[in-house]
Amino acid sequence: MSFTITKKDKKTNARIGIFKTNHGTIKTPFFMPVVTKGIAKFITLDILDDIKTQCFISNCYLLYLKPGKELLEKTKGYHNFINWKKPIFTDSGGFQLKNPSFFISMNDKGVWFKSPFDGSKHFMSPEKVIEMQNVIGSDIAMILDDMQDANLSREAYEIATDRTIAWAKRAILAHKNKKQMLFGIVQGGVYKDLREKCAKEINKLPFDGLAIGGLALGEPKESMHKAIDYSLKHLDEEKIKYLMGLGSPEDIIVSIGKGVDCFDSIYPTKMARHGFIFTRKGPIFLKKAKYKDVFEPIEKDCDCPTCKRHTLAYLHHLLRLDEPGVKILLSIHNIRFLHRLLEDSRKEIEKGTFESFQKKFLKEFKKRD
Amino acid sequence: MSFTITKKDKKTNARIGIFKTNHGTIKTPFFMPVVTKGIAKFITLDILDDIKTQCFISNCYLLYLKPGKELLEKTKGYHNFINWKKPIFTDSGGFQLKNPSFFISMNDKGVWFKSPFDGSKHFMSPEKVIEMQNVIGSDIAMILDDMQDANLSREAYEIATDRTIAWAKRAILAHKNKKQMLFGIVQGGVYKDLREKCAKEINKLPFDGLAIGGLALGEPKESMHKAIDYSLKHLDEEKIKYLMGLGSPEDIIVSIGKGVDCFDSIYPTKMARHGFIFTRKGPIFLKKAKYKDVFEPIEKDCDCPTCKRHTLAYLHHLLRLDEPGVKILLSIHNIRFLHRLLEDSRKEIEKGTFESFQKKFLKEFKKRD
Repeated sequence: MSFTITKKDKKTNARIGIFKTNHGTIKTPFFMPVVTKGIAKFITLDILDDIKTQCFISNCYLLYLKPGKELLEKTKGYHNFINWKKPIFTDSGGFQLKNPSFFISMNDKGVWFKSPFDGSKHFMSPEKVIEMQNVIGSDIAMILDDMQDANLSREAYEIATDRTIAWAKRAILAHKNKKQMLFGIVQGGVYKDLREKCAKEINKLPFDGLAIGGLALGEPKESMHKAIDYSLKHLDEEKIKYLMGLGSPEDIIVSIGKGVDCFDSIYPTKMARHGFIFTRKGPIFLKKAKYKDVFEPIEKDCDCPTCKRHTLAYLHHLLRLDEPGVKILLSIHNIRFLHRLLEDSRKEIEKGTFESFQKKFLKEFKKRD
Repeated sequence: MSFTITKKDKKTNARIGIFKTNHGTIKTPFFMPVVTKGIAKFITLDILDDIKTQCFISNCYLLYLKPGKELLEKTKGYHNFINWKKPIFTDSGGFQLKNPSFFISMNDKGVWFKSPFDGSKHFMSPEKVIEMQNVIGSDIAMILDDMQDANLSREAYEIATDRTIAWAKRAILAHKNKKQMLFGIVQGGVYKDLREKCAKEINKLPFDGLAIGGLALGEPKESMHKAIDYSLKHLDEEKIKYLMGLGSPEDIIVSIGKGVDCFDSIYPTKMARHGFIFTRKGPIFLKKAKYKDVFEPIEKDCDCPTCKRHTLAYLHHLLRLDEPGVKILLSIHNIRFLHRLLEDSRKEIEKGTFESFQKKFLKEFKKRD
């Protein structure tokens, strides 16, 4: 279990690397689809393998509720339960537990929340999420953080930042699984001083990787990018960096240039289900009548099963009829689009041409529709 | 384009054969999944290929409405539009047009109906369905029949039978496409004399294949099986026989023994979406708590992608959470189950052991749950 940077870009902070986990090696930078409850939305694990997914992320608190600790102990972990051979990240649930429909209350001890399945009351602490992630047996566990949404007072962020730091220390003490890596999370909203304070404190702890959380929640893009910079500045360059919840192709390409190695988001699949599909010439909204008789694939050079077989006209037809199968086909393309974007980024960093690739991508991605 | 019986079973009326179409050869007997509007429910064409689907059936009247004649003329047919290389059957829509939400009226000229998409009024005649199926370019076109549901008076069936015969004659005259085969349909409800009359008349016409329609609509099983017998008795043994809309494994196995060569139904996919899955030891209802910790595939010897990768426990977990991806996984198994059942039937007929295979299957299929 290690992270090795194999090449650093000279013109940007981008880098490529090899991330070794207990279930194999990941080439960085990389994108992880979200497999919240054991399967991605409209996408099976076979499909994830087919489209060259290196790794995905699941959710500790949801797996704690269902199928639950007992069953995952029986199968000796989540990998066996779902039959996935490659690396798995698990998020603690710090983000989901703040959902107003589940959240009950929070103090320095932890979070009380309701099960969305049966309304039963549960408690999660920094220690308990570590314990549960040990049962899950994910390759990378995330600490429990105190994540605030984008609309709260500065005081709320101050409390949340201090609590995240205190909980990070408790997580380090609780974590004993030598086959699992543990990542710290930097919080602090869009506030420079809070981000910097949190980054410095998290960076002091012996985490295997460092994540930036609490962004892409509705704050202005500029503030988000600044908050990423404030955080990254104080994080050990040699450690792997994970920017949580960011899935727009533009944000990913910009963030790779800042030195981020790892991304996850429901964005590509959620967009796909609504008929928004990614192309290098910009996203397209497939419901528009102009795609009715376009007998070309979404992208001619895309190697995804959807592009290899089907035309925009066919996909438009199915989307207009609201056929569930089209959600499979479009989700396949959007996830594979991000994997290809990251594969190409790795090649460009290797060649030393990432900066011009990045510029060209950001220019072209705005053209269409 | 031909049908050749390669072996007849000595103990039953089962037979195996080779059905040559303009898009390749089908081994009979066989099962066709339903691809109503260009994709099966929760199942892509790639998946249909993966699970060794020889052929599927689509619906002429739905393709007439969407994507419509003009678009299918542009693509030079439906095969190109959806990119399917193998044979395709199209049903005329005689069954769907009787749906009370679409049906307006009917007389000897044809059927008036409303579009389920925009409420617009349309007309279909025996000639017009042939014309539309020519545009679609399906390998096998079905005639427009007058199908009555199971709850009408004998008089309604008499009119429908006579109309089906008259329309069959008009269809033969209208059909000119030499790359497409045309199948006649026997109607007559569960009435012996009507079935026999219709079968005799349809059998006189130069159809490439003969179908039995209007069954599996809620009539008692015994009446259904008798109606199949009344029909088959008067149909040319050497022609291919298609029993429309029948998809229960037991009914298929019984009907193969009567000499039926071809089946289609939404039953396997509809059942799958509700968590009912087929096994040789009987169907199981996967939502039951007893599958919670069964760490075995649905069927150990099944070669479908679902059984090769996943356990009942995993599928049960996803089904309880109502994850859309589980509908993909269970539909894959149920369709592949029927394909395997038909593959095995072909082997058993070849070996001369179909009768004992049939008996064993019908006995075993009742065991479970």
